[in-house]
Amino acid sequence: MAARDLRGEVAAYIPELARVDPRQFGMAVVLADGREFATGDADVPFSIQSISKVFMLALALGKLGDTLWNRVGREPSGQAFNSILQLESERGRPRNPFINAGAIVTTDAVLDGSTPREALGSLLRFIREAAEDDRIHINEAVARSERATGHLNYALAHFMHAHGNLRHDPDLSLGTYFHQCAVEMTCRQLARSGRFLMNAPGAPRLVSAVRVRRINALMLTCGHYDASGDFAYRVGLPGKSGVGGGILAIAPGRASIAAWSPGLSRQGNSLLGTEAIEMLARQTGWSIFG
Amino acid sequence: MAARDLRGEVAAYIPELARVDPRQFGMAVVLADGREFATGDADVPFSIQSISKVFMLALALGKLGDTLWNRVGREPSGQAFNSILQLESERGRPRNPFINAGAIVTTDAVLDGSTPREALGSLLRFIREAAEDDRIHINEAVARSERATGHLNYALAHFMHAHGNLRHDPDLSLGTYFHQCAVEMTCRQLARSGRFLMNAPGAPRLVSAVRVRRINALMLTCGHYDASGDFAYRVGLPGKSGVGGGILAIAPGRASIAAWSPGLSRQGNSLLGTEAIEMLARQTGWSIFG
Amino acid sequence: MAARDLRGEVAAYIPELARVDPRQFGMAVVLADGREFATGDADVPFSIQSISKVFMLALALGKLGDTLWNRVGREPSGQAFNSILQLESERGRPRNPFINAGAIVTTDAVLDGSTPREALGSLLRFIREAAEDDRIHINEAVARSERATGHLNYALAHFMHAHGNLRHDPDLSLGTYFHQCAVEMTCRQLARSGRFLMNAPGAPRLVSAVRVRRINALMLTCGHYDASGDFAYRVGLPGKSGVGGGILAIAPGRASIAAWSPGLSRQGNSLLGTEAIEMLARQTGWSIFG
Amino acid sequence: MAARDLRGEVAAYIPELARVDPRQFGMAVVLADGREFATGDADVPFSIQSISKVFMLALALGKLGDTLWNRVGREPSGQAFNSILQLESERGRPRNPFINAGAIVTTDAVLDGSTPREALGSLLRFIREAAEDDRIHINEAVARSERATGHLNYALAHFMHAHGNLRHDPDLSLGTYFHQCAVEMTCRQLARSGRFLMNAPGAPRLVSAVRVRRINALMLTCGHYDASGDFAYRVGLPGKSGVGGGILAIAPGRASIAAWSPGLSRQGNSLLGTEAIEMLARQTGWSIFG
Repeated sequence: MAARDLRGEVAAYIPELARVDPRQFGMAVVLADGREFATGDADVPFSIQSISKVFMLALALGKLGDTLWNRVGREPSGQAFNSILQLESERGRPRNPFINAGAIVTTDAVLDGSTPREALGSLLRFIREAAEDDRIHINEAVARSERATGHLNYALAHFMHAHGNLRHDPDLSLGTYFHQCAVEMTCRQLARSGRFLMNAPGAPRLVSAVRVRRINALMLTCGHYDASGDFAYRVGLPGKSGVGGGILAIAPGRASIAAWSPGLSRQGNSLLGTEAIEMLARQTGWSIFG
Repeated sequence: MAARDLRGEVAAYIPELARVDPRQFGMAVVLADGREFATGDADVPFSIQSISKVFMLALALGKLGDTLWNRVGREPSGQAFNSILQLESERGRPRNPFINAGAIVTTDAVLDGSTPREALGSLLRFIREAAEDDRIHINEAVARSERATGHLNYALAHFMHAHGNLRHDPDLSLGTYFHQCAVEMTCRQLARSGRFLMNAPGAPRLVSAVRVRRINALMLTCGHYDASGDFAYRVGLPGKSGVGGGILAIAPGRASIAAWSPGLSRQGNSLLGTEAIEMLARQTGWSIFG
Repeated sequence: MAARDLRGEVAAYIPELARVDPRQFGMAVVLADGREFATGDADVPFSIQSISKVFMLALALGKLGDTLWNRVGREPSGQAFNSILQLESERGRPRNPFINAGAIVTTDAVLDGSTPREALGSLLRFIREAAEDDRIHINEAVARSERATGHLNYALAHFMHAHGNLRHDPDLSLGTYFHQCAVEMTCRQLARSGRFLMNAPGAPRLVSAVRVRRINALMLTCGHYDASGDFAYRVGLPGKSGVGGGILAIAPGRASIAAWSPGLSRQGNSLLGTEAIEMLARQTGWSIFG
Repeated sequence: MAARDLRGEVAAYIPELARVDPRQFGMAVVLADGREFATGDADVPFSIQSISKVFMLALALGKLGDTLWNRVGREPSGQAFNSILQLESERGRPRNPFINAGAIVTTDAVLDGSTPREALGSLLRFIREAAEDDRIHINEAVARSERATGHLNYALAHFMHAHGNLRHDPDLSLGTYFHQCAVEMTCRQLARSGRFLMNAPGAPRLVSAVRVRRINALMLTCGHYDASGDFAYRVGLPGKSGVGGGILAIAPGRASIAAWSPGLSRQGNSLLGTEAIEMLARQTGWSIFG
């Protein structure tokens, strides 16, 4: 199969994503001083998928503050992104907001007092403001495709509802979740949207400096599912991946980096994207670890 | 019980450690420019326990290079420090070198071609050189105490031997392991010994800059067992704890920090030590996350 | 709480069942020669719940034969009746047809080529024929109550659908499943309906002698969830319990026994019902084990 | 490899057993009236291995009564015979006396107030009396071979010791356990030794009728590890297997059956032995299930 080579395999379980050409690669970097660099398919829009969890987390923390942590933890799970195992032994409380279960709860929390339309509107405004780009939008066809095949996510949602950790109807929470995952951006847009996590002077100030640090910490420990340790070891930067093949990585005070290539590792992270950011971090010495 | 208050509870399962006065607290900081600060019981020696895993890992990487990773992973486990669960489903390969199983394998790897005495000699030399202090030693009474009550570690060792991932007799590997855990240091000595992880100009160069980054990454993602995510979130520095109540934390390029207080959290990390380092990191802005 | 004494606690998670008076107890026995004995509330109808899994299994084996076992196993699970753990490691194939996941798959299999209405019609005909009583029916209010609160079962169904082991829409399979659980019978009716599992001369012959043995074997090893071993040890008869408080037990060649009392053990089996059948088996020497 | 065909594979992890010719097969049946039938290699001695757990359980219940159940459960484990998973979540209490962990605890319980030599003496006396044959003995070479390679059992023993559920030094309990597993019998001897579980008039009365029923119940639900349900479904008789390829099965009131063939299924049960007993049960109608 053409898609299965050194580039990894395109996410096959979401039909709309399975149709993406795996031979694409793009990268964009925004420095603290505002300079931008881009290469390859940096202007091709792709589905950001789980990278949206970073923005939704920022939104949820803004709305709920630390009470969010009553419903979701801050620890690496040591399990696959869609695993249901820990939910049973830990009574429906997901390990962190970057695995599927945790992101669904985070979205459910944002829905308190809001309709799905309003919540998605807030999310889009946040991302557009972060990227200073009003063209960023949600791909409805992808959202529909995810809903139609999202049985694992339905299982997670119903399971958490049974444990009292989902407050809204699973259809409502998941409908919102599937739409947030279907946000489309280019590498250039994604890199710009990550500037608020740089704590750099010129970047948009969307959340406080303390919260930026915490979100970065969560990205480092939990941003790549059960390959988070490996990303920290090899790259040394906080990052969040999505099964669309995108990665957002942050070099605090220095740069916001976006890479995209649809082929995935077994854990669901872009293979070429990871390697590109690893090379960049090595050559620039941007590792946060010394 | 006097020991169970805000300070947490002293590790009770190792009799020699259970006798330590829980009301002690010490802290020491060494800056990149060589200046040192210390407070409280910073000159009282304590058992470094699992902090020794950092030094043994540095030694093992020096001896074996990346082949070590064939036998132990680099991912957070999401489980307690002494859990055996993942060993069964992952065929005897521990998740990382900072949980007990992973540290036992690391020690076992260092034993290739060395006697336990030689391996422990290398470890002591490494630590003494790092701290520039020849008085650092192993407390034999603690080592004996750990061996006598170390049934969980014996279970881990035999389990890995059954899967072919322990090469030496469990008595040999564990005998070495129990001794390495029984190294005694003061906060001041510990902070000095951590300078090689700072990548600072004046510090002893015991391992390469690349390797320093990687060890720091592992400390951040795995250094506090199933509270590693919480430490990263609250403190924002790579760190390694021990059940003796010590913590070593590194602010790359800036400082090496040691804190000690015997009372432990449920996950086995010093309660006061964590809080002290959290306060220090907040006030100095040393977080690696922005 | 009145319901929590020696009688155990009424199943609280299905509102309609939570309203049942826990102080009721009934028992009925049908001997191989046709004689019947009954005591207590033996003519009060109750919700048979999971006891329906026995009848649906008989129906499924009649329709599919041994191909059913491609989709569900025949081993005790060692887990709670509603656990999802093994489904993840065993790729959506439930351990046996008497835990919820396995019963949902069994029902889903019966739905091949049938509408829910037809499948439920077949089930009712089977039960009525077995009991020789046309009054046996489904309580719609209970079925609706289960659907409204059945998030754990929805989680199981979606999870198996994600693994390709549920062929119909979860709403369809679960709609049928919730209705089958809502069949209502009295102890007298239930004891009569169990005669086909006696392999006794006068009883209705609904399935072959070989299949009777196999269903009885499954009831013995898996009929009481993670208390199946205890029931075999104490009672020594194949049996199936339901969270409505009913138990059907079979003494092959000798008797069909029904007991009912709503108070449940921690594992979800009727406390008084189990004790009553244990006493009966002890006094009659009906144990199959010697 | 010659050993891997329809006959299954010889247990390779115990060197002494790995050397047994897999092409052997024997069977012996003792009826309630005392008549005996034998075929094939029914007079070739083999290592009974885990079948010894039945005799040691009878001995332990005689010595301790129901207090044994404080330390070991009576439920199928749903896991492999040597799994350590449940021990961690269930605090060192094994599920039943027929998985390795449970048998080690049972042996440890028998060691209270006895030396290993005395405990093994009691066991041999029990078996010899049951079989009315004083030639039955322990193969020291097999016992040594098991000790040398028994790392998984050492892991289980140390793990239970850490949880306070092993009272003696693991070396002592395991030394006894390895010797009990190394008892050697022929099919003819094994079938005779099982007569006390028949509850037949002429058989030796070594335990009470009630206890016989309970031991049979445990054999049915737990006697073949994670294939116990399958054995009950296919054969319909209480039975206990050993990795030496032997199986003891009981038709209460009717017969004691021994079969032996060294090739094992994936779960560690004799393939040909199981099939032979299945055929016998089908032709005789000895199933306890109707």
